[in-house]
Amino acid sequence: MIEVKAVVMEKIAEKIEISMKSYPEPDLAPGSVLLRTIYSEVCGTDVHLMKGHLAGVPYPIIPGHINVGVIERMNGSVTDINNEPFQIGDVVTFLDVHETCHACWYCLVAKASTRCPNRKVYGITYSALDGLFGGWSQKIYLKPGVKILKLPSNLTPKDFIAGGCGAPTGLHAVERATIRLNDTVAVQGSGPVGLFAAIFSMISGAGQVIVVDPSQTRLQAAKMVGVDHTIGSTTSDHRIAEVMKLTNQRGADVTIEASGNPQAISEGLRMTRDNGTYVVAGQYTDAGDVVLNPHWQINRKHVDIRGVWGIDYSHFYKTVQLMAKHRDRFGWHRLVSRVYGLGEVQTALEDVESLKIFKAVIAPNDL
Amino acid sequence: MIEVKAVVMEKIAEKIEISMKSYPEPDLAPGSVLLRTIYSEVCGTDVHLMKGHLAGVPYPIIPGHINVGVIERMNGSVTDINNEPFQIGDVVTFLDVHETCHACWYCLVAKASTRCPNRKVYGITYSALDGLFGGWSQKIYLKPGVKILKLPSNLTPKDFIAGGCGAPTGLHAVERATIRLNDTVAVQGSGPVGLFAAIFSMISGAGQVIVVDPSQTRLQAAKMVGVDHTIGSTTSDHRIAEVMKLTNQRGADVTIEASGNPQAISEGLRMTRDNGTYVVAGQYTDAGDVVLNPHWQINRKHVDIRGVWGIDYSHFYKTVQLMAKHRDRFGWHRLVSRVYGLGEVQTALEDVESLKIFKAVIAPNDL
Amino acid sequence: MIEVKAVVMEKIAEKIEISMKSYPEPDLAPGSVLLRTIYSEVCGTDVHLMKGHLAGVPYPIIPGHINVGVIERMNGSVTDINNEPFQIGDVVTFLDVHETCHACWYCLVAKASTRCPNRKVYGITYSALDGLFGGWSQKIYLKPGVKILKLPSNLTPKDFIAGGCGAPTGLHAVERATIRLNDTVAVQGSGPVGLFAAIFSMISGAGQVIVVDPSQTRLQAAKMVGVDHTIGSTTSDHRIAEVMKLTNQRGADVTIEASGNPQAISEGLRMTRDNGTYVVAGQYTDAGDVVLNPHWQINRKHVDIRGVWGIDYSHFYKTVQLMAKHRDRFGWHRLVSRVYGLGEVQTALEDVESLKIFKAVIAPNDL
Amino acid sequence: MIEVKAVVMEKIAEKIEISMKSYPEPDLAPGSVLLRTIYSEVCGTDVHLMKGHLAGVPYPIIPGHINVGVIERMNGSVTDINNEPFQIGDVVTFLDVHETCHACWYCLVAKASTRCPNRKVYGITYSALDGLFGGWSQKIYLKPGVKILKLPSNLTPKDFIAGGCGAPTGLHAVERATIRLNDTVAVQGSGPVGLFAAIFSMISGAGQVIVVDPSQTRLQAAKMVGVDHTIGSTTSDHRIAEVMKLTNQRGADVTIEASGNPQAISEGLRMTRDNGTYVVAGQYTDAGDVVLNPHWQINRKHVDIRGVWGIDYSHFYKTVQLMAKHRDRFGWHRLVSRVYGLGEVQTALEDVESLKIFKAVIAPNDL
Repeated sequence: MIEVKAVVMEKIAEKIEISMKSYPEPDLAPGSVLLRTIYSEVCGTDVHLMKGHLAGVPYPIIPGHINVGVIERMNGSVTDINNEPFQIGDVVTFLDVHETCHACWYCLVAKASTRCPNRKVYGITYSALDGLFGGWSQKIYLKPGVKILKLPSNLTPKDFIAGGCGAPTGLHAVERATIRLNDTVAVQGSGPVGLFAAIFSMISGAGQVIVVDPSQTRLQAAKMVGVDHTIGSTTSDHRIAEVMKLTNQRGADVTIEASGNPQAISEGLRMTRDNGTYVVAGQYTDAGDVVLNPHWQINRKHVDIRGVWGIDYSHFYKTVQLMAKHRDRFGWHRLVSRVYGLGEVQTALEDVESLKIFKAVIAPNDL
Repeated sequence: MIEVKAVVMEKIAEKIEISMKSYPEPDLAPGSVLLRTIYSEVCGTDVHLMKGHLAGVPYPIIPGHINVGVIERMNGSVTDINNEPFQIGDVVTFLDVHETCHACWYCLVAKASTRCPNRKVYGITYSALDGLFGGWSQKIYLKPGVKILKLPSNLTPKDFIAGGCGAPTGLHAVERATIRLNDTVAVQGSGPVGLFAAIFSMISGAGQVIVVDPSQTRLQAAKMVGVDHTIGSTTSDHRIAEVMKLTNQRGADVTIEASGNPQAISEGLRMTRDNGTYVVAGQYTDAGDVVLNPHWQINRKHVDIRGVWGIDYSHFYKTVQLMAKHRDRFGWHRLVSRVYGLGEVQTALEDVESLKIFKAVIAPNDL
Repeated sequence: MIEVKAVVMEKIAEKIEISMKSYPEPDLAPGSVLLRTIYSEVCGTDVHLMKGHLAGVPYPIIPGHINVGVIERMNGSVTDINNEPFQIGDVVTFLDVHETCHACWYCLVAKASTRCPNRKVYGITYSALDGLFGGWSQKIYLKPGVKILKLPSNLTPKDFIAGGCGAPTGLHAVERATIRLNDTVAVQGSGPVGLFAAIFSMISGAGQVIVVDPSQTRLQAAKMVGVDHTIGSTTSDHRIAEVMKLTNQRGADVTIEASGNPQAISEGLRMTRDNGTYVVAGQYTDAGDVVLNPHWQINRKHVDIRGVWGIDYSHFYKTVQLMAKHRDRFGWHRLVSRVYGLGEVQTALEDVESLKIFKAVIAPNDL
Repeated sequence: MIEVKAVVMEKIAEKIEISMKSYPEPDLAPGSVLLRTIYSEVCGTDVHLMKGHLAGVPYPIIPGHINVGVIERMNGSVTDINNEPFQIGDVVTFLDVHETCHACWYCLVAKASTRCPNRKVYGITYSALDGLFGGWSQKIYLKPGVKILKLPSNLTPKDFIAGGCGAPTGLHAVERATIRLNDTVAVQGSGPVGLFAAIFSMISGAGQVIVVDPSQTRLQAAKMVGVDHTIGSTTSDHRIAEVMKLTNQRGADVTIEASGNPQAISEGLRMTRDNGTYVVAGQYTDAGDVVLNPHWQINRKHVDIRGVWGIDYSHFYKTVQLMAKHRDRFGWHRLVSRVYGLGEVQTALEDVESLKIFKAVIAPNDL
């Protein structure tokens, strides 16, 4: 029997603990695929999983929702969206979201598949008791119907994983923002989501992209990818004043929140021009409330505020294609701060939580 | 010299006071029109004007922004948007907003004319020192370029004034809501704006229209025009539960706020389904703040929130056409609670403020 | 063994012929449903099927794509989009389109499910050799996953079938038209699709709805449902002039083509105002070419032209809900011209082809 | 008296002839500006003006609608859209479209200002008898209210004029195309409009931009600016096949017609994928008809076809800002093939007509 090593988060006496476990390599149902993991991401959500912040997580789980690997085995022919069959040895990634039902009111009438109550997510809402459903594992079991995507030849696994879940989330935020040519876009927060929201705004024809983050360290990544302006002031009024200065005292056409801080909502609305657009993409966990004045900040402003939750296949697919196209311009792999072995997961989580590093990546097998 | 009587609000020792004054009938500049007022509306904004709540009002002013009258004199040929010349004796109304510049960044680049800094409003931002620029006057001076509109033959002045400024504001809110066929629309507040938001939602093909107002008295108007459901509960949780019951526990596809109460924003978002649309149309003055949870109420909800400020000519024009078309169905004139003479303005303001009546109307001349 | 009678179209010596056949009642796979047919529609597509006009039809087939029936048997629990289980005896309809894959580029990236190459259609692209997959049969086999919908209690089977496939197709056309409040909508063609395009335009808040059809007989249905204007002139120039007269010489804001005649496209563009919208919904089979002048009819006109193909579940669902809501206003069942027995299918097809009747319906079982 | 030399097209015995004339330098009305011309464009429209192809041109005219010059005199303070006053010596351009009325149905209700019947265009619809209203003149008189725009400091007059009217027209076409991230955009025609449609598609985040033109010479400009693919085949079927090969046999997500050839419409629709978007931007004069099949090319294709006529200030403004931003990447000035003196206008027109050169520019004064 072949053994597969994986890192598991489990609940022991009301506390989440991490340990390395061994699992037998699974049998493959028809249409399923076994992946040998190359890289798996460590993201802010994993820190929240470790703290038990998310409701409905079926601990024990194998974390790791964005992954890239090599197809090791398949049961039968498995094809991509263009009906091209995958081959053993292909370097692929897959959409972590699975089991969107296409049969409920949200899927069929509202056409809001990210709000389908039946969707499940690799690395988050599958239990380790049910199989190898996360990327912090030497192998990953891709159930029949999981949406697999071959990496374009010029996008290396390290380039891809540098985007992690921040890249498609940033793309979805930009799609919701409906940026128009020459728009000024302000992005609040220079973590992975904010950085990719800024990058995809640049790619979308923004006139200027401004990244706002009180931490000068975090602004380094924004500077590296060449955004037009960074604002690192530590007071809200000063940050707003800086955006006003860059926009003829009107505010940004589009502001994208990617900070995780509820207070950013009030500040971001003040940074946005009348009849502008404000996208809320950073409030993925409940970090508290914010006080708003609906007269000045919504009604009189004639503003559009848009929440953005989750991603679907289109965001994932377009992200991969665009990362391949713009690889030379942005040098994605440089965003990976450090690659950790399976035994170093605890350190990786601490580094992500302390914001010491920009992007942490797990390599569960020897590279 | 012909004298024109008008009611003026002026600031005396930091208090706004009302008095009746006499003005000489003005000379007419080329392209201008003198209207003999039939009806002028008393709306919530007038109550705020009386209390000095609005910034930048050049007291003394003649209030009355929505008006209908008869063309008494013109200087030269004045035409409508179809290039049809007006005639002496025509029964007309006009867009209170004037001097939108078509030369600033908001007009030309953002195409957000309701945010043009140069726009002025009859009855609100013109001083009585400069002329007869409000409807609580026997005559109104329409400056050259004011957008005048003849009432369709089947819409009486009383039908028209029953809509007041609530009708085009409600239409603009519904336009911002982009209602789709069969949508459930919940409207918060059953005053003039809310009622017309409900009516235009019905006309737009909503599957069901629900009006929510803690005052059973105010719900009478909603019942009279035939909305599908009214909810008059006095607790927020109960109102939300009622909407949920009517929407398969999902919430409304579209919720339109027309309450004036900042707390309604939080309640309204909870009434709205995931990926739904929430329009904020009732916060026309600063009535305070609201506490929101951006994770649960915006981001995870994947919701669109849209402020709606002011109206432009298109809203005004469409409102008049649609009121004419649907006159028999809704019997607009029935919404006028009481017609007041020029000498009864103080009473009219008190009745509007106390919510004792639905719609108060001034008739400055004997009818 | 229980026998099921059905009408089959089969290809004999390059000609399509009709005959009545008997089939054994099928076993039910888990999740499947057996329907006892109440009504099945005869539509224009069925005439084309009879003439062999459509490519890729796997004759022999059992026609009848829009159907209503009673649930006679189920294998296991089958639920609707709200997760409500169906019961034996429920009166239901179902979306004829099935097997949309949710796995191809059109489904996942373009989100254009009506262009999914894997979708199949009851009554058209399923072979009678494979089962009871059409409504001109006493019973219909609903495969697992077919989207079933219970009729609202106030919508009778006859009301529902009166809409047939024209109703959701008309709704889809109206959705594509993005009608705005007070728009003038011109509809070309007063057959089932045109009539429902007109009805849903009325429901959507159009200022006036004009139905254009050279046949005065066919205009009767439009008059019956109360459209604002009908134009029955027999020359193209005169029809256009009539629309111009009703629109201040500008043309309709929105024109919807539902005529099936390629020449209608050129006429329809001439009826549409500059910067208006033109929806092409009637060219469901190849009836030939049209000559257009791209300078005058497209570029200079700054017009939007939108093709509309097929329907998805949302159109079907909304159609049923709105037909229930507006049943008293429109009296749908009155649109059914005649109910035919299974043995009268040939007559029904001839009546539909000759345009002698508005809506033909098959009742495969005794009512 | 100061004399101004200008080139005039006038109608002599039913033929348009060119001559150089002298005009007195005009007095300036309050709010007007006198420009010393640096460059004026020669575009395809000027060739049509020379041939008398356009209806309603008030010959004699001074051609030249896109211009850049130095402010020589002003009467009073003239300000830009940000309320910044212009100074003598400023290098500016201006929107050729003037007198859009903001008072007609198209301006106020349809909000389609490019269809305003009152708009006039410098260099085309103003008569030389009325003043210096075109750029093939040493000086240009800017009437009060003409929308003037200062060139950004890093955009030289030669860079700006290289864009000419093709640049804002291309931007408007791209705006109408609503390009989404990663879309494949095919552009038909590699003249000035097509080239800028391609460039703004690249800037908008297209996944690949394909320029199609049967003339290999004209494709040089497209290659120079770095589009992803050029297709120069001389047969329609082969051009379509090439696009199909680049798009997984689906066709382009967006195709923009900028060829001027009516036959391109049919070809372009065949190049576009189902549910794609087709923008018609090149049919600025009536060059004849095209035969289309509405079943295969519109209805079944579920396609959007959008005409695009004229530009407004927003397109002009954004073009100038984006040309400044992307100057180093594209090196605009390189697109100017040759600068002609006022005396060489005849040669310039011949060179443009023969497609011998990409962009011809007049310098009416010594540089």
